[in-house]
Amino acid sequence: MSRGMLIVVSGPSGCGKGTILAEVLKDDKFFYSISATTRAPRPGEVDGVNYFFLTKDKFESLIKEDGMLEYAPYCENYYGTLRKPVEDMLEKGKHVILEIEVQGAMKIKDKCPEAIFLFILPPSLKELRRRLNKRGTEAEDVIEKRLNEAAGEISQAYKYDYAVINGDLDAAVEDIKAIIRAEELRVKNSKNNIDEVLENA
Amino acid sequence: MSRGMLIVVSGPSGCGKGTILAEVLKDDKFFYSISATTRAPRPGEVDGVNYFFLTKDKFESLIKEDGMLEYAPYCENYYGTLRKPVEDMLEKGKHVILEIEVQGAMKIKDKCPEAIFLFILPPSLKELRRRLNKRGTEAEDVIEKRLNEAAGEISQAYKYDYAVINGDLDAAVEDIKAIIRAEELRVKNSKNNIDEVLENA
Repeated sequence: MSRGMLIVVSGPSGCGKGTILAEVLKDDKFFYSISATTRAPRPGEVDGVNYFFLTKDKFESLIKEDGMLEYAPYCENYYGTLRKPVEDMLEKGKHVILEIEVQGAMKIKDKCPEAIFLFILPPSLKELRRRLNKRGTEAEDVIEKRLNEAAGEISQAYKYDYAVINGDLDAAVEDIKAIIRAEELRVKNSKNNIDEVLENA
Repeated sequence: MSRGMLIVVSGPSGCGKGTILAEVLKDDKFFYSISATTRAPRPGEVDGVNYFFLTKDKFESLIKEDGMLEYAPYCENYYGTLRKPVEDMLEKGKHVILEIEVQGAMKIKDKCPEAIFLFILPPSLKELRRRLNKRGTEAEDVIEKRLNEAAGEISQAYKYDYAVINGDLDAAVEDIKAIIRAEELRVKNSKNNIDEVLENA
């Protein structure tokens, strides 16, 4: 069995990333990477489901022994991606999806240059504003802040391999499946297949 | 409108390349590149349809002025790919498909490193033998020669970007469409789209 691929996905809040990934993840050749954190579990949160909950000591010793693919401190806690579960799933041939913000993604790029970097965009900032307004949960000034952040993030899309515009959910899901299929067909990922064709004479 | 992509397709005789490309070419965003030659047209052959028929002088002056993307002499005639019609179609936003053998493809790689290189393989040499036998048009020794050539060509697949195994026609066509869609979604090919998202605020 060939090794799975690491797929790093970013996109601004409101771009529909979660809905798209939920569709993609219906296929069990994918595995959604769970983050690790030092913050305490909230009621109902389960270790290994919502997060891997680690002590600060454990997290820091993992940092030292290169056990984190990326991490960042946030509000006096650490958040990050454990190397081991990602590595295990890749070995099992699963494609591991890492949903992560731009800074984290760029750290992954340094450690795993073979990963696939995918950015999901809204069709326009105008449409993003409409979607955020529609949620109706945020005040106008919060929406303005979100839009500014989104514009900043989208301008980083140039650092990714692929940009998928989520105008229509089904089309965006198909686009992501096409990208992953194409990557599977890359010669560097399918050398075994070529060898097999030649061997079966 | 964004510029089209140059898609170079190779694969051994009997791999089903022609049938697959005929399916892909049903979509008029693709354009099949017609070769140029100095050999005389055969009865029924039309200039600009089967080949661009050129005089030897014309062909040689095109070589001198870098008007050929690739060319090779064969049986006292030249065969090659004119740069101009390919360039014109790419400018019009069409994806240009160039069906060509390995040596020609590698010359294109030097001149157009941004092109996409795609190799189509039979599922196995065993299956290729079966397909060649089934045609019933060739003697046993010709089939052996074909199989040897095919093995030599397939071992060059490593030089391509993508390898598509044609076990099932529909699956192979879908694979090629996925590759082309993924390439369209590459950030380097969709910078305009990202700019548009940001501009439409």
